[in-house]
Amino acid sequence: MRALVLNGDAVALETDRPVPTPAEEEVLVRVVRAGVCDTDLQLIGGYMGFGGVLGHEFVGIAEEGPLATRRVVGEINCNCRRCSTCLAGRPTHCPHRTTIGIAGHDGAFADYVAVPQHNLHVVPDAVPTDIAVFAEPVAAAYQIPQQLSLTRNDRVVVLGDGRLGNLCAQVLAETCNAVLVVGKYREKLALLEALGIHTTLLDELPNDRAADVVVDCTGSDTGLPTALRIVRPRGTIVMKTTAAGTQQMPWSPVVIDEVTIVGSRCGPFDRALTALENRNVSALPLISARFDLSDGVRAIDAAKQHGTLKVLIDVAPD
Amino acid sequence: MRALVLNGDAVALETDRPVPTPAEEEVLVRVVRAGVCDTDLQLIGGYMGFGGVLGHEFVGIAEEGPLATRRVVGEINCNCRRCSTCLAGRPTHCPHRTTIGIAGHDGAFADYVAVPQHNLHVVPDAVPTDIAVFAEPVAAAYQIPQQLSLTRNDRVVVLGDGRLGNLCAQVLAETCNAVLVVGKYREKLALLEALGIHTTLLDELPNDRAADVVVDCTGSDTGLPTALRIVRPRGTIVMKTTAAGTQQMPWSPVVIDEVTIVGSRCGPFDRALTALENRNVSALPLISARFDLSDGVRAIDAAKQHGTLKVLIDVAPD
Repeated sequence: MRALVLNGDAVALETDRPVPTPAEEEVLVRVVRAGVCDTDLQLIGGYMGFGGVLGHEFVGIAEEGPLATRRVVGEINCNCRRCSTCLAGRPTHCPHRTTIGIAGHDGAFADYVAVPQHNLHVVPDAVPTDIAVFAEPVAAAYQIPQQLSLTRNDRVVVLGDGRLGNLCAQVLAETCNAVLVVGKYREKLALLEALGIHTTLLDELPNDRAADVVVDCTGSDTGLPTALRIVRPRGTIVMKTTAAGTQQMPWSPVVIDEVTIVGSRCGPFDRALTALENRNVSALPLISARFDLSDGVRAIDAAKQHGTLKVLIDVAPD
Repeated sequence: MRALVLNGDAVALETDRPVPTPAEEEVLVRVVRAGVCDTDLQLIGGYMGFGGVLGHEFVGIAEEGPLATRRVVGEINCNCRRCSTCLAGRPTHCPHRTTIGIAGHDGAFADYVAVPQHNLHVVPDAVPTDIAVFAEPVAAAYQIPQQLSLTRNDRVVVLGDGRLGNLCAQVLAETCNAVLVVGKYREKLALLEALGIHTTLLDELPNDRAADVVVDCTGSDTGLPTALRIVRPRGTIVMKTTAAGTQQMPWSPVVIDEVTIVGSRCGPFDRALTALENRNVSALPLISARFDLSDGVRAIDAAKQHGTLKVLIDVAPD
């Protein structure tokens, strides 16, 4: 089959990659569409030391099992369901897990991907494939209200006008009246303004410490220092993006201002699919470009461009 | 009057320092006893750029106002009580505040200190002065259960066997069955073992990620990386000690493991005084040495020694 494979820091299309053999409790999924995520770019930069087939945002057709022939999306953490962490209700943190396209498990930039049966979610008929492919990042955005007790009056600032910042802002605006997105690109901010979400350029961000909640979606080591500059005392900073490398910063403001910093990763797929079905989250305007899987290397290059939002990979026709 | 004054990085006893003139809503307190805190040592190291009379842990006699002649302790944050932060119930974070012996306000290593009237708390008669002088750090320890929803079954690890680590462990052991203190000094850990609190040497700390809550009382930039190594996924790290300088560390574990980091500073004096009155917290064994204020420079030097716990400064007889 075709597959976009990361080897060291090089990404190449292979055309004779063997179709994966599903492990116990896994099923084969024929991939229809996939999305390129910042994490893919970080992996190429050396994050996690991953090698193999990239891709963890996907829509496909289940080839076997009880969902055979159904259109599905898949959670990315493949957990053991037996250890104390899984049994304590934290399966996305299973210490024995692999992560599709990220760690120890080939991903979905390929004609086929093997996915644990219990990771699959059926896509509602009313959700087009181009929208369903956003299920994974929208679920990640819904992890924030799952972790915090947000109220309507909370003043929320989202740092970053990229793919994930956009989705997080939309999700948070469902609950909070005052959501402000801080970005660097007027055209990306315009997408949010069109949805009624306030935005500002980073250069014009006031220095007042008024935010109850700051969500860092910058994917940059400048995000956390900026967040600390604008969060109010006893406010909360949500770290939404992983980044390779180290962060150097003075720590005493965290203590002096009694700030809470919350790491936030994968979220609830069911809530994401419901939001996409009800059009509570607008995903289509985020699509910047699309490439056939055979042009996958170009898709990666396009996603690296600063002006780009979501790049889709067409693996098979709907 | 006598006063122990920080000027640049030098601490010296002055014998002709003018008695402070209380500002509006402040009263003069004649100091009886004071305690040396790690923060004092950090200030001498350049933290906060403070210059003036050191000292923020003290017991004294109010010289004026409704508490005149009463034995008192004092909260250290001098707030405006008028701004939006104060009115929102976060007076210890007032942006207009000064902090006694730490920022913009002379401290209590002196014969007299000026303290806002509403910062004072009367010491119960049953609490000896040598115990009451621990009110400020014990209050800081009680800030932790005020910020977190602790349960009896939470596995808590306290990093640091110093003054603050000891007090935090005692306070947390009131609520949580499993409190483990990690330290470097067998004689300091023995004090906790005598209270029935489990301890381990840092070198013997297991690498399992089993702690629900880790409290960093190390005052060192090694504390946070150690905490991240032992906290469980979705666990909480409480940052209890401020430190000058910067912290360099990889950030992705915070996101991947969805760790919560909570800065924690000053706490409730009323709760601290009640705990000291009821002997729920054992303070006297922490006293390593005492010096007359006239020997204040030696008191500071003694507090810098690694084996030392609390150093008291005798300013006047009880």
